[in-house]
Amino acid sequence: MAAPGDPHVRPGGPAASAARAAWDRPGPALGEFELIERLRTIVPGRGEGVVTGIGDDTAVLRPGRTVLATCDVQVEGVHFTRDLCAPADVGWRALAVNLSDIAAMGGTPRYALVSLLIPPSAGSAALEELYRGMADLARLHGVALVGGNVSRTAGPLAVDVTLLGDAEHPVLRSGARPGDGVWITGQTGKAAAGRFVLEHAGGPAAADSLASAYRRPVPRVAAGQALGRLAKEGIVTAMIDTSDGTAGDLLHLAEASHAGVRLDGTRLPVPAGLADAARAAGVAVETWTLDGGEDYELLFTATAAFEGRAAETVQTGGVPVTRIGDVLPEPEGRWIVTPAGRRPLRATAWDHLACR
Amino acid sequence: MAAPGDPHVRPGGPAASAARAAWDRPGPALGEFELIERLRTIVPGRGEGVVTGIGDDTAVLRPGRTVLATCDVQVEGVHFTRDLCAPADVGWRALAVNLSDIAAMGGTPRYALVSLLIPPSAGSAALEELYRGMADLARLHGVALVGGNVSRTAGPLAVDVTLLGDAEHPVLRSGARPGDGVWITGQTGKAAAGRFVLEHAGGPAAADSLASAYRRPVPRVAAGQALGRLAKEGIVTAMIDTSDGTAGDLLHLAEASHAGVRLDGTRLPVPAGLADAARAAGVAVETWTLDGGEDYELLFTATAAFEGRAAETVQTGGVPVTRIGDVLPEPEGRWIVTPAGRRPLRATAWDHLACR
Repeated sequence: MAAPGDPHVRPGGPAASAARAAWDRPGPALGEFELIERLRTIVPGRGEGVVTGIGDDTAVLRPGRTVLATCDVQVEGVHFTRDLCAPADVGWRALAVNLSDIAAMGGTPRYALVSLLIPPSAGSAALEELYRGMADLARLHGVALVGGNVSRTAGPLAVDVTLLGDAEHPVLRSGARPGDGVWITGQTGKAAAGRFVLEHAGGPAAADSLASAYRRPVPRVAAGQALGRLAKEGIVTAMIDTSDGTAGDLLHLAEASHAGVRLDGTRLPVPAGLADAARAAGVAVETWTLDGGEDYELLFTATAAFEGRAAETVQTGGVPVTRIGDVLPEPEGRWIVTPAGRRPLRATAWDHLACR
Repeated sequence: MAAPGDPHVRPGGPAASAARAAWDRPGPALGEFELIERLRTIVPGRGEGVVTGIGDDTAVLRPGRTVLATCDVQVEGVHFTRDLCAPADVGWRALAVNLSDIAAMGGTPRYALVSLLIPPSAGSAALEELYRGMADLARLHGVALVGGNVSRTAGPLAVDVTLLGDAEHPVLRSGARPGDGVWITGQTGKAAAGRFVLEHAGGPAAADSLASAYRRPVPRVAAGQALGRLAKEGIVTAMIDTSDGTAGDLLHLAEASHAGVRLDGTRLPVPAGLADAARAAGVAVETWTLDGGEDYELLFTATAAFEGRAAETVQTGGVPVTRIGDVLPEPEGRWIVTPAGRRPLRATAWDHLACR
């Protein structure tokens, strides 16, 4: 419950108040087994290959032959605050960040396991809302909740999700070759701009789409699968998601591929409303588009055959793709080119260990 | 670092001081990527079926056809304290509790993903120690660390482990039939007694084995696999681990099997030193053997064919098994029988949401 002196209380507009109100809604006091019982019914537990879901010592699953596994956590005060995100947003995000990792392999997400650390200040109504947000996204992708645990904590709320999936032909970060183009889905910088908008204003329509990008990022699962099929044909060569920021993740991809890279700064697509928000924030547009992080777009490399028809098949799914650079031989280095000249590509790392 | 007024400081013997000293050992300040890089090298990352481990968006794995998945968390102040457990103990436990779940399915553990929530008070030296404790146990079972994440938290240290395994013939909780015997590996109550010993004394030799049972529980993986092979022959019919306490977990098994059960209280094996510790604590022996929890023994049901040769094959692995009761038709109820008569079997639930 919000109390005077609560360290989580921050200034914010009407959106912030609405988010916090959803956290403070009262619900019944529940024991571990009662709470688990209520939460487990919210997210679908059945899905393809679920032999035994929640209710035994482990889940029993029959995924495809090649299994993908990833985990990522949302911690209050680090990845979200109660003013910026309602409980349902946190549930959505906790799953979205993992879906994005499966998408970046070109895979099909299947099974989620959720660990919930619950502080005394989080009531059962908020937790059920959180699971409903997760369920909304799980249903969109046919993901089944097959395991998890809850524990009390004296610290902040945390939602740790492990997501399993499968892929016939996983797309690694390491396959980029000199001559390939560097491409990106959608636009980056949205989430960082959205966070600023939420912290500083209620915001007009364009700002709302930015706020939504921060609160409910849309993982590029279908686009990832389309790109995965093109990888099987040798057209798409490497892929990563942009959770750490465009620059940082492009560097990760280049390093894994032992390749150089040239990023054309003028080609980076800029989301609607971002320039206005950047002006209000007093930061360069590039600060967000290059280093904002938390956008969950797909950054990939592809041979010349990707231009035209292949790019269209991805775009047919409603996801724009933009060519933003070129893969170089490793000795040629890693650069960003802007009208002011070229400079080494560097990441302002998104460091979850840093206090924010 | 321990400071006057630190809420984690509790009275304790020399063992407690040694545990805390290991937490307070200084180490270098590291960023997210540096810390991950150091931690990932501590636990083996390669193993059967690991196509791609840490370093891409997801791990790429080739487990057996039927995959087991489970997750469980260790939270400071709930599951451990720095006085009771050294960092290496916490790492061991975080993996052990999950290994026990795979064991309870008769499965082979294979791949771990670890989420670490790091408070400012946990230094890099302690975190590396924690991973070394996990690595000791991972090596014993051929488990590979294939994924994970680290995040700062303002709250207590938490280690959330997801463990994947496989099993040709998973043993569920739901297969117990009237006429089956109820069996248990090893002895229960050890961990609860060990916790008391650690909280209240240094302890003589017998007490040390109890303390060790609390700090470094030994999951019954090989015994679980032997029982799994007997399940394939229809001899073992249901299995669960005793993480929540013998009584509570037997009830879970009976409920899942839609069966009644009679537990013979006089047959419950009592660990060496437990009676003395119980006297010192002023509790009945049964309080710990029935409801202590955190023992990670295997509780299973088996047909008459299990007596004799089959039981011996499990014991050959060095794990004693004891028949402690019988499965009844559901209408006959769930009972514990003692020299004082019979009473309904009830669990004093191990509730991770309760403050302890």
